[in-house]
Amino acid sequence: MENFEILLEQIAELASKGEISALRKLLCELNVVDTAQLIEGLEPKNRLRAFRVLPKDTSAEVFAYLEPDTQAELVRSITDTELENLLDEMFLDDTVDFLEEVPASVVTRVLAHSDPKTRKLINRFLNYPEDCAGSLMTIEMVHLRTSLTAAEAIEKIRKTGLDKETVYTCYCVDREHHLLGSIPLLSLLLCEQDTLVGDIMEDDAQLISVGTHDDREYVADIVKKYDLLSVPVVDNENRLVGIITVDDIVDVIEEETTEDFEKMALLAPSDDEYLKTGVFKLARNRILWLLILMISGTFTGKIIEGYETLLAGFVALTASMPMLMGTGGNAGSQVSTLIIRGLAVGEIEIKDYFKIVLKELRVASICGAVLAIANILRMYLFCEGTIEVFLVVSLAMFCAIIVAKLIGCSLPIFAKIIKLDPALMAGPMIATLVDIVTLVIYFGLAKVFLI
Amino acid sequence: MENFEILLEQIAELASKGEISALRKLLCELNVVDTAQLIEGLEPKNRLRAFRVLPKDTSAEVFAYLEPDTQAELVRSITDTELENLLDEMFLDDTVDFLEEVPASVVTRVLAHSDPKTRKLINRFLNYPEDCAGSLMTIEMVHLRTSLTAAEAIEKIRKTGLDKETVYTCYCVDREHHLLGSIPLLSLLLCEQDTLVGDIMEDDAQLISVGTHDDREYVADIVKKYDLLSVPVVDNENRLVGIITVDDIVDVIEEETTEDFEKMALLAPSDDEYLKTGVFKLARNRILWLLILMISGTFTGKIIEGYETLLAGFVALTASMPMLMGTGGNAGSQVSTLIIRGLAVGEIEIKDYFKIVLKELRVASICGAVLAIANILRMYLFCEGTIEVFLVVSLAMFCAIIVAKLIGCSLPIFAKIIKLDPALMAGPMIATLVDIVTLVIYFGLAKVFLI
Repeated sequence: MENFEILLEQIAELASKGEISALRKLLCELNVVDTAQLIEGLEPKNRLRAFRVLPKDTSAEVFAYLEPDTQAELVRSITDTELENLLDEMFLDDTVDFLEEVPASVVTRVLAHSDPKTRKLINRFLNYPEDCAGSLMTIEMVHLRTSLTAAEAIEKIRKTGLDKETVYTCYCVDREHHLLGSIPLLSLLLCEQDTLVGDIMEDDAQLISVGTHDDREYVADIVKKYDLLSVPVVDNENRLVGIITVDDIVDVIEEETTEDFEKMALLAPSDDEYLKTGVFKLARNRILWLLILMISGTFTGKIIEGYETLLAGFVALTASMPMLMGTGGNAGSQVSTLIIRGLAVGEIEIKDYFKIVLKELRVASICGAVLAIANILRMYLFCEGTIEVFLVVSLAMFCAIIVAKLIGCSLPIFAKIIKLDPALMAGPMIATLVDIVTLVIYFGLAKVFLI
Repeated sequence: MENFEILLEQIAELASKGEISALRKLLCELNVVDTAQLIEGLEPKNRLRAFRVLPKDTSAEVFAYLEPDTQAELVRSITDTELENLLDEMFLDDTVDFLEEVPASVVTRVLAHSDPKTRKLINRFLNYPEDCAGSLMTIEMVHLRTSLTAAEAIEKIRKTGLDKETVYTCYCVDREHHLLGSIPLLSLLLCEQDTLVGDIMEDDAQLISVGTHDDREYVADIVKKYDLLSVPVVDNENRLVGIITVDDIVDVIEEETTEDFEKMALLAPSDDEYLKTGVFKLARNRILWLLILMISGTFTGKIIEGYETLLAGFVALTASMPMLMGTGGNAGSQVSTLIIRGLAVGEIEIKDYFKIVLKELRVASICGAVLAIANILRMYLFCEGTIEVFLVVSLAMFCAIIVAKLIGCSLPIFAKIIKLDPALMAGPMIATLVDIVTLVIYFGLAKVFLI
């Protein structure tokens, strides 16, 4: 962290003084991710200078790691030739990622400076729905014919000159580009060099692929399950159109998790970083569910109005309301979180529902009993009222916990059954429902035992 | 899914009939992950049979994907020779993973059948704290001397015969095993074959490594940030002791996320799958925080007791309490979730605190104003009481939302400052605090305007 600040200062100084070669030397020694982060830290003028000194291939890599705002700014500032060189060096999936985030004017300029073939490809990619395999894939990959020998295959890989993880698994296709099998680069390297690719490729049941329109969450599940470095993407007719690499999957997992967190807190999901989102947009993302749950508060209000005289007679009943509903809400939120997460990672399925209900009934009985006893002690020590009132509160708490655990484990699974996202059925939603049921039970018990 | 059931039946039938060769053929055509899943689905007797027909190397891979219970059961059932063969074929990190999960008797048997050198290594691995890089790493890797040529290096890789992702990045060391640099397999393949490894390796600022005792969350962050396929692990003296591959990092990310979800719902974090955890353990994981928050309900109780006469005079005040506290809790939980997640993925840092507070004040004002107006309408339509009471409730709601947003954005950051996990400061915790402050404001306003 300290190193970062020192480096940033050095770079800023070299850039403003225009010491090109020293600047290039310093930046080229760094990892491209760090270079990108440092360039983000500079002022716009120095940013452009620092970016311009980078060698062609490095600048394309660094560009892919910049924030969309910075990317747009740079594209607006560089010359036509520089832009063409940059686009030439960039991986297609990085170009598409960046085009998805920047203003239309930048997209137009980029498309205008791409060669016709790339432009056609970019347009096709931009047309895939945002959450599907097609929008995640890259077309930079190696496809081999099964009739090649291992030595010929390695020569072909050498010639494509592709970099990094995109070639560690190669894919075999026939004349019409149908996917036939996969073969790790390592197998090509380790086998007898005159072996035919077709003889050592993994095919049939071992070959795993996804469709262009498969959901990215499904793709992530596949990559996780089979510990893959890349997965081939095929079209409707099983023709190989691209691959998705594990580093993009790691990003997908993170984004999907963030979406779950947001839904669980009843926020409208948003791709934007918190600090960069405007106040009005933040407010809009939050207000809908707050309104809905607030209006549903009418039910609890009506229930309480109905017991006005009962409440007036026993102040401890009113005084215990927040504690009682809070405990119910917390108990429900605990179990709903476990179920939502279990459904998300595949540990729990719909068919487990009855097993879960039985389990939760037993867990709730234990938790409920311990809390009810603790509550009697607590009220005896700290609260005004008779032992009958304390008993009613404790009994209501026991019931509230049972109800909360049942609602908490049921709603996420019901949501899943009716194809809603289970994450919506988390803490706040559960608490609102538990509040209503708890109050009905509470006053019911009070009426029976206290009047 | 349907395919799975059909396959499972076929395999069960072949296994019970003892049709060894047909069974082997069928199982060998599948991906090892699927084979493991199918073996899990069999009865114990058939499970052993199916496992035994697998070729030696496949059986080691399949074994690594089995559940700990099944692994323990198989180790207890196979012969000494079979066990020795299995251990011989398995990657050390898989062996360690499995030993960490099974009963002591199984560990003893496994250690007794390992050769002395492996036993020593296993013991060293089992001694690393569970959440650190040392316990995640594998020692199966390729280390190269800088004086080798590319051709010699490739020959060495061929000879080690290691499989899969563990060799896609090779590491260069000196005579004392100090880490000098890294080199992708692909670079070895693409360069002139008489180039020296030392001349093309990535070193200095570009070389990324982690220490044996670094937290696994930190390791995951590094791998994510730099899009690595593997990261080298070094000891205190920068000697290379192992590598961590991206597939294990994907699992770490998933486990760490689950831990965050659990903490946010105030559950004691647990590695066990929900369906396999006993009722008492589930209850124990939940009860502590339920008790603490329940007891803290004494504060809200005391506040309400103090306003007994006020509440008796205006039923709408009592009737609005659950709605008011629920809205406050929901508003707080929304922002605390955003901040906790932002801190976890590195989008938000402690130094952003004042920016966040200013932002939240503005968001809260908008949300508060909209909800307060909606509430007056709601109460006018559905509730008993005078317009003065409605105004007090709405004003209190406006204040509650401001307070909730402030508490919700502050507590996770304060937790981070005092080195607590920010995830603890989520919905339930925030709601309990917001409840107390909201009630004080509510009754304060009521006293001023209604009496």
